[in-house]
Amino acid sequence: MKLFRFGAYENEKPGVALPDGRQIDVSAFGEDYTEAFFASNGLQRLSEWVAKNGSSAPVLEPGFRYGSCIARPSKIVCIGLNYAKHAVESGAAIPKEPIIFFKSTSALVGPFDDVMIPRDSVKTDWEVELAVIIGKKASYVEEADALSYVAGYAVHNDYSERAFQLERGGQWVKGKSCDTFAPVGPYLVTSDEVADPQNLNLWLSVNGQTFQNSNTADMIFNVKQLVSYLSQFMTLLPGDIITTGTPEGVGLGMTPPLYLKAGDVVELGIEGLGEQKQVAVAWSR
Amino acid sequence: MKLFRFGAYENEKPGVALPDGRQIDVSAFGEDYTEAFFASNGLQRLSEWVAKNGSSAPVLEPGFRYGSCIARPSKIVCIGLNYAKHAVESGAAIPKEPIIFFKSTSALVGPFDDVMIPRDSVKTDWEVELAVIIGKKASYVEEADALSYVAGYAVHNDYSERAFQLERGGQWVKGKSCDTFAPVGPYLVTSDEVADPQNLNLWLSVNGQTFQNSNTADMIFNVKQLVSYLSQFMTLLPGDIITTGTPEGVGLGMTPPLYLKAGDVVELGIEGLGEQKQVAVAWSR
Repeated sequence: MKLFRFGAYENEKPGVALPDGRQIDVSAFGEDYTEAFFASNGLQRLSEWVAKNGSSAPVLEPGFRYGSCIARPSKIVCIGLNYAKHAVESGAAIPKEPIIFFKSTSALVGPFDDVMIPRDSVKTDWEVELAVIIGKKASYVEEADALSYVAGYAVHNDYSERAFQLERGGQWVKGKSCDTFAPVGPYLVTSDEVADPQNLNLWLSVNGQTFQNSNTADMIFNVKQLVSYLSQFMTLLPGDIITTGTPEGVGLGMTPPLYLKAGDVVELGIEGLGEQKQVAVAWSR
Repeated sequence: MKLFRFGAYENEKPGVALPDGRQIDVSAFGEDYTEAFFASNGLQRLSEWVAKNGSSAPVLEPGFRYGSCIARPSKIVCIGLNYAKHAVESGAAIPKEPIIFFKSTSALVGPFDDVMIPRDSVKTDWEVELAVIIGKKASYVEEADALSYVAGYAVHNDYSERAFQLERGGQWVKGKSCDTFAPVGPYLVTSDEVADPQNLNLWLSVNGQTFQNSNTADMIFNVKQLVSYLSQFMTLLPGDIITTGTPEGVGLGMTPPLYLKAGDVVELGIEGLGEQKQVAVAWSR
């Protein structure tokens, strides 16, 4: 099943993309894709609802706005330097165990929304990443069981202001949390439709030039290791996002470094999960 | 006004402590202390409700459980090394600008709940801190206006697993986010009742011995500077918690370092905001 959300920012409604290509409004199901939805076996209930009511649900015409594919979760947990070549291009050591940082959930937006370059920013950078959405409460989970805690997967662009992240006093969250820095979607693709999360091509281009082009097979720590590892340090809640690190090819890694300016067009995608496109704009909110 | 929450974990109800000492159940007001409450002028509305209905509201008998004084917010933003002597005892440089890290909101508990020592933890430490609760959405706020964005203040114990924080791969959030590591309360004391947030004694003892004893006057970056600074990097939402750093006297700073073991009793307080007490227990959830 492919879930999405559509409509105005912070007033999104739930939708489902059917196998035949129709995109239906499932507002009549009565629930948004929130923590409570995932915690109450929502995916199963929605699937049954779609089987019964999908053919009579309103079909959306192209042109609508996609929101983030899930509602604002309790947290966005990010994994740092999880592809070896990206660690090298960042001038960092290859980690011995996963590096964790958070991104403010207020950064969450839709996959085609503009990315706003923060005030006084000169180093806004891109990072295509596989996002994992947690399906049930996870605390001290074993690796062997870890994938059963995953509801599904989505595309994420982990926008990063490198000066804020690396030159302003230590912890990375400072450069990861600006508004619009977390486009997630267009689809949450449920786990049953992702044969192997460790064999997905992912790519990103800026103004038509490909900068990132890799495969999730190159992760240092894979999804089941990450879910298990994180659950040793905190409780993961239904709907939480784990974003699993980016491969090489970010702006920071170019010689000289290359950062976004207003008007730049960023396109990215992951095999089987869909594509995103953002236009960089100057701060305006 | 002094707000609190009472009842079973994750099923708390709202209460108000009246000036005459009575603690009343304000469930009939119909709202919990959530983001939506703060965003919709809830403090003003609650104050008016209490003026009209407070004398007839149910009075709570002592012995109830206090929950966190606010419902789970979108984020807990922590400031690192914000008292000079604590930076020194931690072996760290005095920061030139605020150090930001996050704590998972799943760590939030009541002020008298047990603190659970995580599995395989040998370095669970304490940190008394002044918590600031945001009252309205804050983005690019000027210092001069910053205090108008503050709903109130509370006591927070920023529990920290030092090995997880400092020896497991870089970013501090890993040692800050375990369940029960964020007792907040007993009261949210509204800003109008805190004459000067930069002149509050704060203290913490373990098994009756005082370890921390300082004043918020010793902060390197004060509350209005912190609210303004943070709002340059992310949008602060109503109900968000900013916890402003701890003074010297943590276990990490002792010679030799001293960490919590099951049975230890931690007591702490801030002038005018109330007191907390936690008993350390082995992991059991």
